[in-house]
Amino acid sequence: MFPDCRDIVRLALVEDIGTGDVTTQFTVAPETAGAARMITKQAGVIAGLPVVTEVYRQVDSEVQVTPLVSEGDRVEAGTVLCHIEGRAQSLLTGERVALNFVQRLSGIATKTAQMVSLVIGTKARVVDTRKTTPGLRNLEKYAVRTGGGHNHRFGLYDAILIKDNHIQACGSITEAVHSAFAQAPHTMTVTVECDTLEQVNEAVQAGADIVLLDNMTLEQLSQAVSIIDGQAAAEASGGVNADTITEIAQTGVDVISVGALTHSATALDISLDFLS
Amino acid sequence: MFPDCRDIVRLALVEDIGTGDVTTQFTVAPETAGAARMITKQAGVIAGLPVVTEVYRQVDSEVQVTPLVSEGDRVEAGTVLCHIEGRAQSLLTGERVALNFVQRLSGIATKTAQMVSLVIGTKARVVDTRKTTPGLRNLEKYAVRTGGGHNHRFGLYDAILIKDNHIQACGSITEAVHSAFAQAPHTMTVTVECDTLEQVNEAVQAGADIVLLDNMTLEQLSQAVSIIDGQAAAEASGGVNADTITEIAQTGVDVISVGALTHSATALDISLDFLS
Amino acid sequence: MFPDCRDIVRLALVEDIGTGDVTTQFTVAPETAGAARMITKQAGVIAGLPVVTEVYRQVDSEVQVTPLVSEGDRVEAGTVLCHIEGRAQSLLTGERVALNFVQRLSGIATKTAQMVSLVIGTKARVVDTRKTTPGLRNLEKYAVRTGGGHNHRFGLYDAILIKDNHIQACGSITEAVHSAFAQAPHTMTVTVECDTLEQVNEAVQAGADIVLLDNMTLEQLSQAVSIIDGQAAAEASGGVNADTITEIAQTGVDVISVGALTHSATALDISLDFLS
Amino acid sequence: MFPDCRDIVRLALVEDIGTGDVTTQFTVAPETAGAARMITKQAGVIAGLPVVTEVYRQVDSEVQVTPLVSEGDRVEAGTVLCHIEGRAQSLLTGERVALNFVQRLSGIATKTAQMVSLVIGTKARVVDTRKTTPGLRNLEKYAVRTGGGHNHRFGLYDAILIKDNHIQACGSITEAVHSAFAQAPHTMTVTVECDTLEQVNEAVQAGADIVLLDNMTLEQLSQAVSIIDGQAAAEASGGVNADTITEIAQTGVDVISVGALTHSATALDISLDFLS
Amino acid sequence: MFPDCRDIVRLALVEDIGTGDVTTQFTVAPETAGAARMITKQAGVIAGLPVVTEVYRQVDSEVQVTPLVSEGDRVEAGTVLCHIEGRAQSLLTGERVALNFVQRLSGIATKTAQMVSLVIGTKARVVDTRKTTPGLRNLEKYAVRTGGGHNHRFGLYDAILIKDNHIQACGSITEAVHSAFAQAPHTMTVTVECDTLEQVNEAVQAGADIVLLDNMTLEQLSQAVSIIDGQAAAEASGGVNADTITEIAQTGVDVISVGALTHSATALDISLDFLS
Amino acid sequence: MFPDCRDIVRLALVEDIGTGDVTTQFTVAPETAGAARMITKQAGVIAGLPVVTEVYRQVDSEVQVTPLVSEGDRVEAGTVLCHIEGRAQSLLTGERVALNFVQRLSGIATKTAQMVSLVIGTKARVVDTRKTTPGLRNLEKYAVRTGGGHNHRFGLYDAILIKDNHIQACGSITEAVHSAFAQAPHTMTVTVECDTLEQVNEAVQAGADIVLLDNMTLEQLSQAVSIIDGQAAAEASGGVNADTITEIAQTGVDVISVGALTHSATALDISLDFLS
Repeated sequence: MFPDCRDIVRLALVEDIGTGDVTTQFTVAPETAGAARMITKQAGVIAGLPVVTEVYRQVDSEVQVTPLVSEGDRVEAGTVLCHIEGRAQSLLTGERVALNFVQRLSGIATKTAQMVSLVIGTKARVVDTRKTTPGLRNLEKYAVRTGGGHNHRFGLYDAILIKDNHIQACGSITEAVHSAFAQAPHTMTVTVECDTLEQVNEAVQAGADIVLLDNMTLEQLSQAVSIIDGQAAAEASGGVNADTITEIAQTGVDVISVGALTHSATALDISLDFLS
Repeated sequence: MFPDCRDIVRLALVEDIGTGDVTTQFTVAPETAGAARMITKQAGVIAGLPVVTEVYRQVDSEVQVTPLVSEGDRVEAGTVLCHIEGRAQSLLTGERVALNFVQRLSGIATKTAQMVSLVIGTKARVVDTRKTTPGLRNLEKYAVRTGGGHNHRFGLYDAILIKDNHIQACGSITEAVHSAFAQAPHTMTVTVECDTLEQVNEAVQAGADIVLLDNMTLEQLSQAVSIIDGQAAAEASGGVNADTITEIAQTGVDVISVGALTHSATALDISLDFLS
Repeated sequence: MFPDCRDIVRLALVEDIGTGDVTTQFTVAPETAGAARMITKQAGVIAGLPVVTEVYRQVDSEVQVTPLVSEGDRVEAGTVLCHIEGRAQSLLTGERVALNFVQRLSGIATKTAQMVSLVIGTKARVVDTRKTTPGLRNLEKYAVRTGGGHNHRFGLYDAILIKDNHIQACGSITEAVHSAFAQAPHTMTVTVECDTLEQVNEAVQAGADIVLLDNMTLEQLSQAVSIIDGQAAAEASGGVNADTITEIAQTGVDVISVGALTHSATALDISLDFLS
Repeated sequence: MFPDCRDIVRLALVEDIGTGDVTTQFTVAPETAGAARMITKQAGVIAGLPVVTEVYRQVDSEVQVTPLVSEGDRVEAGTVLCHIEGRAQSLLTGERVALNFVQRLSGIATKTAQMVSLVIGTKARVVDTRKTTPGLRNLEKYAVRTGGGHNHRFGLYDAILIKDNHIQACGSITEAVHSAFAQAPHTMTVTVECDTLEQVNEAVQAGADIVLLDNMTLEQLSQAVSIIDGQAAAEASGGVNADTITEIAQTGVDVISVGALTHSATALDISLDFLS
Repeated sequence: MFPDCRDIVRLALVEDIGTGDVTTQFTVAPETAGAARMITKQAGVIAGLPVVTEVYRQVDSEVQVTPLVSEGDRVEAGTVLCHIEGRAQSLLTGERVALNFVQRLSGIATKTAQMVSLVIGTKARVVDTRKTTPGLRNLEKYAVRTGGGHNHRFGLYDAILIKDNHIQACGSITEAVHSAFAQAPHTMTVTVECDTLEQVNEAVQAGADIVLLDNMTLEQLSQAVSIIDGQAAAEASGGVNADTITEIAQTGVDVISVGALTHSATALDISLDFLS
Repeated sequence: MFPDCRDIVRLALVEDIGTGDVTTQFTVAPETAGAARMITKQAGVIAGLPVVTEVYRQVDSEVQVTPLVSEGDRVEAGTVLCHIEGRAQSLLTGERVALNFVQRLSGIATKTAQMVSLVIGTKARVVDTRKTTPGLRNLEKYAVRTGGGHNHRFGLYDAILIKDNHIQACGSITEAVHSAFAQAPHTMTVTVECDTLEQVNEAVQAGADIVLLDNMTLEQLSQAVSIIDGQAAAEASGGVNADTITEIAQTGVDVISVGALTHSATALDISLDFLS
């Protein structure tokens, strides 16, 4: 069940097409048929072909997009991702928007897959954060899943994550956790962000479901995992990159959250080649 | 005159806050006052502080955002970018969205400034492309300007850019250019994308305003500039990065377009520190 | 932090005012000042005065609404809830929409308070369901909280609730729970809806966070609570009303969900009296 | 011609589904087919099946909804209202929203039918008011018609209804009626709300099309009907319920308006049973 | 109470400004102050100054618009309509949209006033039709009122107007009128469009509130008025222009509807003069 | 490639239909089939039939609209423009909105064709302005093209047009032009509005792409054309009408902009005749 991308696709098309694709309008006859194939110029993990379909559905409902790979497939440079057929005008007009989506989403899926491969053999899952592109969160989180990662909470509304300032406002971790459990829906979990092992201990005692271990050393992470001892989930966060993630995973944490999956993924190089 | 960002800010807030910031709601009393400062942890060029102001205006119109640097300022790591004061709940609820915008826009401005610095002493201007984030084009193009770059066309609607497929549909460059001039508003320019020097020659003869030199070698670029000889603007495109841009600029082209300014800029590391 | 009601208020005003309040327009001079007070004709728990403020802010930003009771206050018939001052035209034009909101929300808060009072002395919390009015879910869930109840999940997106059909599709409760935990964000809880004690046992063994005991007898509920034995939260659902809720709570369940809080609450009788 | 419900259905789906139905997504395979039937557990008058169709059209355009009863049919408990076939995921995801609409609308139709049955043999028609759910007015007024009632005005924009405050602002009933007729479109009727028989007399003399008899005793209503004597329509309002409506109708009034049709109707108990 | 024009103003500004007023942005410094006055170059009746205020409120909330004439004032060429002060950039950016509204609305008010002046001394009121500009109906009907005219129904939803095809579908005028009265809200009037005097007679007998006399000769109109004899309102329609309206009014009709008030009004010539 | 008119059509339908077409709903049975033909009662150039198709697609997707003439065809009075078949209710409900669009757009196309015919044999093209109806700019500019005219810029965002106030703010034409070229995208042209020949000379020297000759006499226009001498495009503006346009064109200008094409075109008289 792919996320609903109709609104953001519409926004992107309005933004790009505006009052009309003047070049195409004035150089290509409406009746000219066209065909194109989308090719990746870089190896990577593909995500976003359903968005390509939606882009062309909105531009011209008679354009046919035929995917040739599945979402999440790891492909080599030169792989044809899909065929697109229909009016040449429509193919040209939708090209850039379709590519902008699939390049970004595949970039995220590829980066996620790389990070996930580095924790194989550990029990850690790699998750995203809320450091996503404004307007694209749901699609970007889909790309993370497609790349083999997992999602963290989707926003401020679907889980409790108590940070420094919340703790300070409540007086203590214990009070903050109790206050949250007392008022929040019983279906919500409570995470506490901890900088020290003392905080970890308090969070676990207070009944936190998840303890977020923020910017800790490998040594601290290991100790935190011992303290938590299965009474909560242990989530490592901060300073995670391809060089550090394996060792972090080996400390025994359950979850590693990585902002760079979305805020610093670069686009996968994908292009549209017109046939004949 | 800053771009209107009200709609995309609203979209981003809806996406993040949804039915409410449950953590803040259940741990921070409504009457608690707060203050915070936004600090950059990396050196860079700052863009997007007006978006921060708009984010907080929408979250809570009584929050005060006071910028301490100007848009486009190059700052060191550790610089305080703005102060924010108001209800603690509001400060916490708007934090992530505000940061997501300013990090991305400052990342683009910083990357742009870097590229611009590499062409100093040449007549080339560095411009963006349409490879922008869906929904953020206007803000991202603002960030490019803020970083010292220039903008290319904003979309398919405001300039003619004739590519391979348009040429093929019309029969020749000459016919495509004539067809465009005959039908388009007289206020619009015509650019022709050329892969060969023969095409460059034909585009200039046909009266193109701008010749886009696509993926040419330095040698070809120099020859193209000679052929064009001031009768049109010369724009280099393709394979532009920090290693190649200086030599490309030295070929005498007028414009260098760089997709990576927007599609592969990474976020500048900026955080919000709460003051007790 | 009151839910954002701007959009639904705007929708309600557009729906009621349309092309203009013709009566007021043609019988009341624009410069006439007015004052009114909102009075409840029935005793109850008040919820929704911030919506009244928002209604008038949208009708005419110069109207002043001054609440005289707090959200959640239990008041007697005849209590004045707020004063409203401003242009007579504006007061008349916004009257019905303001009342429609506050009557409904206070009706829900009042019904919730009644149910909550019937479980005092037990550990059960009274929660709502997704059986809310289309478009008003967030406000109605706010009214439940205001009446002293708690919220269940807000929608399909913020918690896992495995029902018959999900179980059937997966093969067993155990498989469904494992499948959900393996794929869902680690911040989400898993609830399993059970009709029998065997299912309860399986759900607990599978690691469910919450067991929803659907339409069970008091005897079954007690047994289920024993089986669960604190390893998960126990939620009773189905056939809950003022006659049955106390005994249900006494079985030791943690949560009782009541659809009627929202789908069958009737409006509290509140009116607007104009002062000459 | 059913009211256009696309926008409110979309709003309701966005509200319920948000970023995705996580339970279904993680426990039901996309290719699984499903079938379900909607059954009423209470006797009543059915309204809203076209909304069910629209809900599923928006969730998944390949789902088939086949109504088995007509709008306005009075059915017994246990009656199957429609069959629904399609992807199991889609059936599950749309269930709650579809039911929320049809339960509420059928509740209104049922209550309306009950009231209408109590005035049979009189000339009175039973009509609704503007005391409707914000955002649902058009659907709720449709439900009233479906239940055999009639509609009052739809909003402030389509008829003149002069109340106390309008009279006071104009100086007298006569002046208010004249002012309204002089300025309003000639296609609009003028109603005057009267508390006393003197007012009734003045309203009729002033040329009111309809006289609204507010909160009058049966004796007063009879006298008012005599005074009006066919020169205007007589509408009774206030304190109307199942115990009083028959006698009110027997006073000879033309119209009886009943706010409770919409503001206090409770949902009809309808459920979706999944097959196989 | 001016119609709400916020949405159409926003639409017009988005349409004109798009991604930004490039001329102003690149030639006028943000801090430059400006002042301008709006002057009419033609004599006419002014309508739409509140839209000018709203345009500038949306462009820049610090711009001050000070009206110097009242809505509906008849003014000579050269009259200053309002002063506008604020940032020079904002004044320039909003100029065209502000003028487009006020020119059109004043054109309609002026044309209406001309037609109204031609029926003075008769009892006929001049009304508009539904032949309005898509999206501007409410503003254009306001302009008609401002010019001294009256409004016909606002749309298909607020009054019954039975035409040929409705009559044919029902079998006869009598049946159509009865069907409409039986089902429509009691607050709605029924108009019947008649081409012949026989139809007029039938419509009156059937109880129509208004008889629309379509494209009749003066002779026919007089006869129709006699037949109607005060039992319904008589509305003349078709072929109404400045040459014919006086004689039409003298036949004794109550209402004359004129499509040209809106569909063929030309803009009043109004400009914005900048003061250095 | 017809402009996207979905949003403005939706707006127009909402505006006209509102809560429902009560006349049709209460007099025409839903199952009645209908057929109609759209006929022009005046000779003219037709534009807007695709909007008719879109109107009926939105009202009822089963209605079939079959165009019998092409966009831009010049037709005699009495010509049938299209056939429309489907449910009688739908045909009646969509009639007015469909006509409002096609009448206005054909009026503009007709007026444009008239002006264009008056400049045949000269090199001048006739172009529109930004004096369009709020919300309809893109459709109205389409109508101008359909009538044989050309478009000027679409808004403030797609070309630089330096007027008095911009010049004054910059200090001189030269400075304004240089400032614009230095900052604007290299794809944009710069036009300078000139009142005097001295200004024309300065604009050309400064490198303007287009010189707008504002309200000049024929003598001045001729001199301006000589001064410009092919170094820029010459655009005449102001005081253009059917009496003056031929002589203006004969001065040798390249472009003549005519605000009246859109702001003062009157509707072409087109009606819908129902068959059977």
